[in-house]
Amino acid sequence: MEMRYRKLGKWGLKVSEISLGAWVTYGNTVKDKDTIREIVKLAYDHGVNFFDNADVYAHGLAEEIMGEILQEFPRHTLVLSSKVFWPMSEDVNDRGLSRKHVRESIDKSLKRLRVDYLDLYFAHRYDPEVPMEEIVTTFSGLVDEGKILYWGTSEWPASRIAEAVTFARANGLHPPVVEQPQYSMLYRERVETRILPEAERFGMGLVVWSPLAMGMLTGKYDHGLPEGSRFAQYEQFREMFLTEENREKVKELKRVADELGLTRTQLALAWVLRQGQVSSAITGASRPEQLKESLGAAGVDLPEEALKEIDAILGNAPQE
Amino acid sequence: MEMRYRKLGKWGLKVSEISLGAWVTYGNTVKDKDTIREIVKLAYDHGVNFFDNADVYAHGLAEEIMGEILQEFPRHTLVLSSKVFWPMSEDVNDRGLSRKHVRESIDKSLKRLRVDYLDLYFAHRYDPEVPMEEIVTTFSGLVDEGKILYWGTSEWPASRIAEAVTFARANGLHPPVVEQPQYSMLYRERVETRILPEAERFGMGLVVWSPLAMGMLTGKYDHGLPEGSRFAQYEQFREMFLTEENREKVKELKRVADELGLTRTQLALAWVLRQGQVSSAITGASRPEQLKESLGAAGVDLPEEALKEIDAILGNAPQE
Amino acid sequence: MEMRYRKLGKWGLKVSEISLGAWVTYGNTVKDKDTIREIVKLAYDHGVNFFDNADVYAHGLAEEIMGEILQEFPRHTLVLSSKVFWPMSEDVNDRGLSRKHVRESIDKSLKRLRVDYLDLYFAHRYDPEVPMEEIVTTFSGLVDEGKILYWGTSEWPASRIAEAVTFARANGLHPPVVEQPQYSMLYRERVETRILPEAERFGMGLVVWSPLAMGMLTGKYDHGLPEGSRFAQYEQFREMFLTEENREKVKELKRVADELGLTRTQLALAWVLRQGQVSSAITGASRPEQLKESLGAAGVDLPEEALKEIDAILGNAPQE
Amino acid sequence: MEMRYRKLGKWGLKVSEISLGAWVTYGNTVKDKDTIREIVKLAYDHGVNFFDNADVYAHGLAEEIMGEILQEFPRHTLVLSSKVFWPMSEDVNDRGLSRKHVRESIDKSLKRLRVDYLDLYFAHRYDPEVPMEEIVTTFSGLVDEGKILYWGTSEWPASRIAEAVTFARANGLHPPVVEQPQYSMLYRERVETRILPEAERFGMGLVVWSPLAMGMLTGKYDHGLPEGSRFAQYEQFREMFLTEENREKVKELKRVADELGLTRTQLALAWVLRQGQVSSAITGASRPEQLKESLGAAGVDLPEEALKEIDAILGNAPQE
Repeated sequence: MEMRYRKLGKWGLKVSEISLGAWVTYGNTVKDKDTIREIVKLAYDHGVNFFDNADVYAHGLAEEIMGEILQEFPRHTLVLSSKVFWPMSEDVNDRGLSRKHVRESIDKSLKRLRVDYLDLYFAHRYDPEVPMEEIVTTFSGLVDEGKILYWGTSEWPASRIAEAVTFARANGLHPPVVEQPQYSMLYRERVETRILPEAERFGMGLVVWSPLAMGMLTGKYDHGLPEGSRFAQYEQFREMFLTEENREKVKELKRVADELGLTRTQLALAWVLRQGQVSSAITGASRPEQLKESLGAAGVDLPEEALKEIDAILGNAPQE
Repeated sequence: MEMRYRKLGKWGLKVSEISLGAWVTYGNTVKDKDTIREIVKLAYDHGVNFFDNADVYAHGLAEEIMGEILQEFPRHTLVLSSKVFWPMSEDVNDRGLSRKHVRESIDKSLKRLRVDYLDLYFAHRYDPEVPMEEIVTTFSGLVDEGKILYWGTSEWPASRIAEAVTFARANGLHPPVVEQPQYSMLYRERVETRILPEAERFGMGLVVWSPLAMGMLTGKYDHGLPEGSRFAQYEQFREMFLTEENREKVKELKRVADELGLTRTQLALAWVLRQGQVSSAITGASRPEQLKESLGAAGVDLPEEALKEIDAILGNAPQE
Repeated sequence: MEMRYRKLGKWGLKVSEISLGAWVTYGNTVKDKDTIREIVKLAYDHGVNFFDNADVYAHGLAEEIMGEILQEFPRHTLVLSSKVFWPMSEDVNDRGLSRKHVRESIDKSLKRLRVDYLDLYFAHRYDPEVPMEEIVTTFSGLVDEGKILYWGTSEWPASRIAEAVTFARANGLHPPVVEQPQYSMLYRERVETRILPEAERFGMGLVVWSPLAMGMLTGKYDHGLPEGSRFAQYEQFREMFLTEENREKVKELKRVADELGLTRTQLALAWVLRQGQVSSAITGASRPEQLKESLGAAGVDLPEEALKEIDAILGNAPQE
Repeated sequence: MEMRYRKLGKWGLKVSEISLGAWVTYGNTVKDKDTIREIVKLAYDHGVNFFDNADVYAHGLAEEIMGEILQEFPRHTLVLSSKVFWPMSEDVNDRGLSRKHVRESIDKSLKRLRVDYLDLYFAHRYDPEVPMEEIVTTFSGLVDEGKILYWGTSEWPASRIAEAVTFARANGLHPPVVEQPQYSMLYRERVETRILPEAERFGMGLVVWSPLAMGMLTGKYDHGLPEGSRFAQYEQFREMFLTEENREKVKELKRVADELGLTRTQLALAWVLRQGQVSSAITGASRPEQLKESLGAAGVDLPEEALKEIDAILGNAPQE
């Protein structure tokens, strides 16, 4: 199907439903630039316009690789993001959301990504050590300077999102326009009960990470723990997702996917996109084939019947 | 021990640690005015200054009874509250937090309570049908007119509290100074994980309702379901609290209470007051003896050791 | 000489240079209403228009007496003040600058003084337990309601005056227009180094209390401690002012006063009024003769030469 | 011990407890760049991140020297300050806090220090000739432009700090986040009675200069006036600190220092850092050995007992 584009909430920017994240992959698991270039080109050619980055991915290297590759495409056809919060060194000021770190970080990210401005800049977590006014005036100031076009939050508590937007609005500053939460069939309560209502209320978009639950929803863990897979590497995520119960659910989902002529990967992506407030599902890919499969979710609208069946299988829909 | 008084967060008003709520009792379960007068007088004589009311309690009758009885005491020695939100009739506008309903309600509450102003006025729930600016400007306006001295929220989502305070501050309006949540040993997660952080952040006080978990924590349900008791009447609360597991916990709490020379009622009240941000525990009483027992919790500081023991028994302390 | 009138700083209100304070005297030391009436009438007839009161003077009685007596004069010819802060009872809320106490107090003061509005209402001290926004919005609100025409501070720290004025200005609220500090030849450092600069900066007037240093400057303690005198009653003030060094200074001042044809009382009053920012010197009087003497300071301008001589005698001029 | 870092009050920036000031030393007493380089490197290697400068130190030369030396270190690991106020030439506009002088000065300081932005920019004194709105909008504007990250005050009167913060807050401008006062065992009253309360109230940090009372507290003046010492050069400071009484106190402090295994220099530095609101003690050093000794105060927490002993020796603790 054709790639579709959605607005970031009420704001003017449009992003592709399926987007590509550089996350732990590029510069890290995947070091071969030719492979990465092939993936990025594939994405671009299929209509992906949103490429999600962060300073901390492969410690700056992910940005550098993406910066080099993305040079090939006209700047205006790209929606480029980066993020700031996680420590980039041992230095006490080289982390968090202080004005010092944010302003120093954006310049480094721009340099690594070889661009004059970012489309989106995310506060990668909320920083309780910095007053809200310092955070909001700093990000809003970057918009005024033209170093970023919009700013957003990632994994912020609902009440801090509400405070940031309200503070910005009332003071004539640029409010965050997007939140980037983790969201998938296997991790939905926080988004559905607390984040979606804020996004709707304030006209923000959501671009969601890990829509495949670290790969759990692809089916690749149906029968074991493939070597080199994410769960083999990351104990924290394995414990979070790789349970017997989840395995059963994922197997059952196959039936639903089959009926719709989709893979489970495509089903999982289309499922997060059933929410109008979700602007994009950020996928990762270490091989072109993976991405190709994900791209198959573009333009898919899951029928009401399937959604009910899925909820019945998952058994984790938040109660009103 | 002596009654102690606490500020409502950072604000100037002081309320007694133990306060008396008119809730479902007066005008409803307890209809005899002499008994109510005796209870109120007992409370007042023991230093209770905060009397919590709502328009909806016994459909206005609770306010009328309290208004008549409280006439006896100098106005400045009382901290009187009421609330607005729940439907008072079938009329479409006779409910919620619209400017129309709030302004019409305050006048009726003042009349029933026979006073010129309330010390505290609560938005009894959040009303998603009314814009925040309508809510905040309405309550703030009542402060400006002198009809109320402060306003607060009750059972509002954390993010709506954050929004209301931030909106008010940034626009030179009076922010809410207090939230009234349900909070007890058996119902603590919401307050401890989401409401307390907002209260601390914004300098608000908490006055908590049902600190005895509808009586479950008094021990009166140790061996059965006394006729006429709250759980015999209200299925919803019975299902919420009267479980075998809770019965066991409450029995175990007796040991901790005994060691401190307290009853379980007193233990439960002192326990909610261990939180500095909690300004008052609102108790109900249908008989003077009940209140006398509750008043015994005034001035009690639970030792660190007891708090640990209680947490071990309850097993419901929120994880960081 | 003729009574002169001065503006309260930049504001529109004019007060007599010499004013009459009800302080500890009326209802307390002086209980005879006829005497008080005679004094007040004498003051009024000599052009005194500012009568300074407080809720706490004789615990409300001073206001009642003044209220009765001042009935005789057209309201518009009077500048009436009262104050709020000091405890009026044991009640926890019956003190300080909370919105509750201030609003409850003004109504009681208006009633005791038998007027619909006060010209000036003073926050009798700064209250660190109440947020500045609660204090300023409360007093400013009373101006909006017409219960008071202006508000002021008394014995506030310089930085809190600066904050109150700046906060009020920036938020479109009524700032305090006057500060009432203790100020006299024997107590000058605080006013001259810290309060006068704020008054000048913000266009506030000063109305000063105890310009005679509790009577020390009248010369009545030249040779001993007269029975029934203020120092015989109040140990705190005696220790503050009745030192051998001060006695010598006061004796030397007689020479300066004699040369100018003034009494030392008149010299002391004219001395505080040498400061253009001082709008009025508040005097007390328990006998008509006392007041008559004070009124003799009206219209007196001390020559430069005398001021130098006085500074030489006092030896307490603050260094730049 | 390890260097520790503290936030500037409530704000996001973190500075090392011990910092290095260029003050009168570099370019003036100490002209040899190699020595200065050695000192700066020593400081940096021991965790010092805050280097305090001013335009007026050695008339610009101190900034130039520091600018050259600090080139070696990654910019984000440094917290660089400068200051503006004192005359830089005979020109009437080349001084004070006018918008003209501040904006012209920052560009010169940036050039001398060879950086694009300062972390902190201090108004080196309060300037009564410039309206507060000109001062605050100018410094706040430099933050908006990214030429400075935060601004602060130095030796401002408490009430002007209160006014600046309140004005900035109420107008959506960046308030000052730090004050730089003189503070030491021998000069404490101003800070402890007037400046600390403002810093606490407004969430500002203090970075204190002359924590060793111009060297008096090191013990180097125990027995005389060493040639070339600061007191031999500066009469004003000698008269301020080099009294017989202070000599005795400083000798007695040796006992307390010895008991803790500290030198008096280290004791004096740890003593100013006992105040949580003090973010950093600014030390000077003309020889590496001096700095080494000072760095020994990093991470030292003085025990309660020692603090009491010190107060007894000093006899200058402000009375409540």
